[in-house]
Amino acid sequence: MLLHGIQTHFTPKLLAGKKILITAGATMEMLDPVRGITNISSGKMGFALAKVATQMGAEVTLVHGHATAVRPEVSHAYFAGTANAMYQSVMQHIADQDVFIAIAAVADYSPLVSAEQKIKKSEESLTIQLKRNKDILADVAKLPNPPYCVGFAAETEHVLQHARQKRQDKNIPLIVANQANLALGSDNNSVTLIDDSGEYALETADKTSIAAKILSHLHSQLN
Amino acid sequence: MLLHGIQTHFTPKLLAGKKILITAGATMEMLDPVRGITNISSGKMGFALAKVATQMGAEVTLVHGHATAVRPEVSHAYFAGTANAMYQSVMQHIADQDVFIAIAAVADYSPLVSAEQKIKKSEESLTIQLKRNKDILADVAKLPNPPYCVGFAAETEHVLQHARQKRQDKNIPLIVANQANLALGSDNNSVTLIDDSGEYALETADKTSIAAKILSHLHSQLN
Repeated sequence: MLLHGIQTHFTPKLLAGKKILITAGATMEMLDPVRGITNISSGKMGFALAKVATQMGAEVTLVHGHATAVRPEVSHAYFAGTANAMYQSVMQHIADQDVFIAIAAVADYSPLVSAEQKIKKSEESLTIQLKRNKDILADVAKLPNPPYCVGFAAETEHVLQHARQKRQDKNIPLIVANQANLALGSDNNSVTLIDDSGEYALETADKTSIAAKILSHLHSQLN
Repeated sequence: MLLHGIQTHFTPKLLAGKKILITAGATMEMLDPVRGITNISSGKMGFALAKVATQMGAEVTLVHGHATAVRPEVSHAYFAGTANAMYQSVMQHIADQDVFIAIAAVADYSPLVSAEQKIKKSEESLTIQLKRNKDILADVAKLPNPPYCVGFAAETEHVLQHARQKRQDKNIPLIVANQANLALGSDNNSVTLIDDSGEYALETADKTSIAAKILSHLHSQLN
């Protein structure tokens, strides 16, 4: 806690007075009470952003799914275990936010039917019908008076192309692209920031340092 | 580490000279490099069994999947992230084991096809074809000279009936039944041991205490 206090003390208060909503971790779309479809996510990068944004003086609202990393102390924290719960929680808290950072690994699809009791295995094969989930980031960006929206694109191939496309499709000012197989679960990350002013490839570093660089860049875009 | 040393020192060496293979945590059956089907499991109960069995003097081999709990120190530990990898790892190490405790939440089904690159969302709905996975515990119990097999039944309804049936179907001497929705992720557990000698409902307790009681009962059955 002392170290945390020192870090907080020496971090420039770039984001003082700003309200930032961050999603982090992974959602899990339940097939029954014990099984579900999920995305790999430790929550580390999202929690690092929440921690550093708090140190920079922002009022952080963290809406998080499942994560193995330790959740940092922020102004407001809410658990949302499914894509639908995360959508509801974000929409409930988005109204007066200055910035929305969507980094949670939200499932794109969820089962049409979720069994109330554990499914007993019996058949040799099984078919699951999935329906598309609502797109939280795209819907926030479409709000009448949207916050400054930051998306993340974790891709396994054609990383920059997919990220540019995603930024365009969702109509958001800033997207952070990274190589999913290198970043997921790791303490380090290597990202490229893409916005109207250009593309910035940051050097590989620990996720806390990457978070500080992303937030400093964000600050420069807000003013 | 000192506390661990003291606990180890004062735990009766009931399982000295025994070799025990324990599976723990959850497998994740990948749909693509970042998404998969998994079971809820913190790994806490399996890791508690591995820790206490080690304290009781056993040579523990731990084959574990994904887990949020901290892995205890054991003689041998192997990560197996999928049902197939766990099957292979167990079969590779089972030959000279005295006891096999299968508590991992192993997926019953896995996708017929796993994409090499992240699937891009495009369709409004999606269908996933799954195939049945091999049953690790049942196959170990069918070995010519099987170890003493302990199964776990985490059920959401008709807990004891399902557990009795599972014990019979897999042809194993001891099964531990519990209520999945109460046990999963919790530090406590409430279980019933079912073997040829009867059914023993243990009082609700922390998972370390439950592990000690299960292993003491196991010891009584081995001799």
